[in-house]
Amino acid sequence: MNNTRDIKVRFGKKSIWGIATFLAASLCATVLFAAGPDEELMNKAKSLFGPLPASMPSPDNPITPEKVKLGNVLFWEPRISVDGTVSCVKCHPLGLYATDGLRKALGNHCKENPRNDPTIFNAAAQISEHWIGNRTSVEDQAKQALVGPPAFGMPSYESAEKILKGMPGYVMMFKQAFPGENNPVTVDNFAKAVGAFERTLMTPSAFDDFMKGNATALTDPQKRGLKTFLSAGCGTCHFSPYLGGQMYQKFGLFEPYEKYTKSQQVDEGRFAVTKTPSDKYVFKVPILRNVAETPPYFHDGSVDRLEAAVIIMAKIQLSKDLTREETGEIVAFLKSLTGVIPEAVLKVPILPPAD
Amino acid sequence: MNNTRDIKVRFGKKSIWGIATFLAASLCATVLFAAGPDEELMNKAKSLFGPLPASMPSPDNPITPEKVKLGNVLFWEPRISVDGTVSCVKCHPLGLYATDGLRKALGNHCKENPRNDPTIFNAAAQISEHWIGNRTSVEDQAKQALVGPPAFGMPSYESAEKILKGMPGYVMMFKQAFPGENNPVTVDNFAKAVGAFERTLMTPSAFDDFMKGNATALTDPQKRGLKTFLSAGCGTCHFSPYLGGQMYQKFGLFEPYEKYTKSQQVDEGRFAVTKTPSDKYVFKVPILRNVAETPPYFHDGSVDRLEAAVIIMAKIQLSKDLTREETGEIVAFLKSLTGVIPEAVLKVPILPPAD
Repeated sequence: MNNTRDIKVRFGKKSIWGIATFLAASLCATVLFAAGPDEELMNKAKSLFGPLPASMPSPDNPITPEKVKLGNVLFWEPRISVDGTVSCVKCHPLGLYATDGLRKALGNHCKENPRNDPTIFNAAAQISEHWIGNRTSVEDQAKQALVGPPAFGMPSYESAEKILKGMPGYVMMFKQAFPGENNPVTVDNFAKAVGAFERTLMTPSAFDDFMKGNATALTDPQKRGLKTFLSAGCGTCHFSPYLGGQMYQKFGLFEPYEKYTKSQQVDEGRFAVTKTPSDKYVFKVPILRNVAETPPYFHDGSVDRLEAAVIIMAKIQLSKDLTREETGEIVAFLKSLTGVIPEAVLKVPILPPAD
Repeated sequence: MNNTRDIKVRFGKKSIWGIATFLAASLCATVLFAAGPDEELMNKAKSLFGPLPASMPSPDNPITPEKVKLGNVLFWEPRISVDGTVSCVKCHPLGLYATDGLRKALGNHCKENPRNDPTIFNAAAQISEHWIGNRTSVEDQAKQALVGPPAFGMPSYESAEKILKGMPGYVMMFKQAFPGENNPVTVDNFAKAVGAFERTLMTPSAFDDFMKGNATALTDPQKRGLKTFLSAGCGTCHFSPYLGGQMYQKFGLFEPYEKYTKSQQVDEGRFAVTKTPSDKYVFKVPILRNVAETPPYFHDGSVDRLEAAVIIMAKIQLSKDLTREETGEIVAFLKSLTGVIPEAVLKVPILPPAD
């Protein structure tokens, strides 16, 4: 199956370039001819990906400006952690595309988290949160992080609520974000506010322009990379406008992943959640938006370079040995997923005074 | 001396209100009369403080937009710390007025720093940096922090330079900030860039409007607080437009500070730098700009509330027992020093990719 695809791609490429060379009497002719394959590639890609939507669906947590504003402030708030050092932004610094650059995130008292920090940009669109899908939504993730022992580490939800209630600035903002509620300062509303904020964190990129029909939005190497990405089968798991986040998959379908990564220990993945033997070594397929900006890679951050991650993925998920050229082109394509972070998100909010 | 001051203030207040009551036949008359004491207070305050200058002097490190831009990016950069978690902004989060809210700052591997984190807003105007003045300037502070064991903890300056040199984005920015230099990516230039950025961090407030002649910029309680601040003698040490940062002083002139603070241990202060016995318990007088937003207080962060800090300072530095009313008014005045953080400073810069 994979071999067939491989041959088709190689043949396809040679064929195109053969004919192109033959016909390229003028630049104009080449451009006209190129429109064909571009359109085919675009249509294939559209059927699997498509552009980011204008806004993220949020059926259970209606987005309001007040909720987003509160969520944005709370995102930067460390005073609701047990040692006063952990806020959402600690593990998701925006300047590094909302990842921390570490193999595994460090929470309160520098406690190591079990897995690598995924970006929160575009993350709310996934089927679940965390590598093993043990959080149902960004709201669930935000709430549970408050009492997560290696995260904020608060002894109870009540203790977090008490701190928030002690700051008049927050009391006012919670009232505005949750009008009509008698007791708006709750961790559930904390979760809704942070979740609403996170649902605004979309990063459209050159790839979206391409998905909307602008054939020149990707460079030629990027288009070749996209073609290889598709023909190699990467899109089998990395689909949707987010290129991932929609399914679970075993890491190491053809060979154990630890054979190629520098993993210090073997993580049984989603088995920890479901206790189903078939879920051993199964992880949520990560989204690939901004992947070039979010090293290190994999659930344990065991691989530093994107090139290596691409080669390993092809090898152990698709049993395919990518050439150096193919790897470079896929990496070039992945860089087209590096998006624009909304200006408003990059503004540091002033936190309410302690009293 | 202090008693005399105390009596004068009390008499002064009673006198003003006595006359005011007597004359207050109309609001107009009161307002006209109030102009007198306001002007006197303003003049006294001007002679000791004055408004923030338009820009901070920087004789040894000329400010250029390129240097400030690079310094701003470097300010957020954690990848030049030994564990990848420490950047300038870690201990100086802007949303908390560039302090971290902790008793003592936590650096790499959560190592505790010897003292509380001062804000970096307006900090470059001080005679020296750090509580004990063991850093000559913000540039010196930035440079030494790179290898400071409880700070960035890098094994050497060269190791920090090597990381920066490995990121093409930084190489380009250093070239632009230090044009004509053969080897611009150095820790000395790191220090100059961060220092240049820090020299732009001024936060004008209502107090500056008052210092510029707008008598209504302060509320009446704030004016009374300023008057008490002056008459009690706080301005003896907390002078200049920064209300501090211009001299060293013993903490606990009249009584040992640990008698009133919750200090876990006694810090000998500047004695550690000079080894001069008279420098025992001597610290740099901290600037009071934004003091209401930067708890906890003192060199060891041993006091949480500003009211308590004010009472303790009056007691052990001036041998004065402030009344509850006087304390409240001084706190009200100190809140007039809470300034506006420049918009540009609040924007999170995107950090250069790893390669």
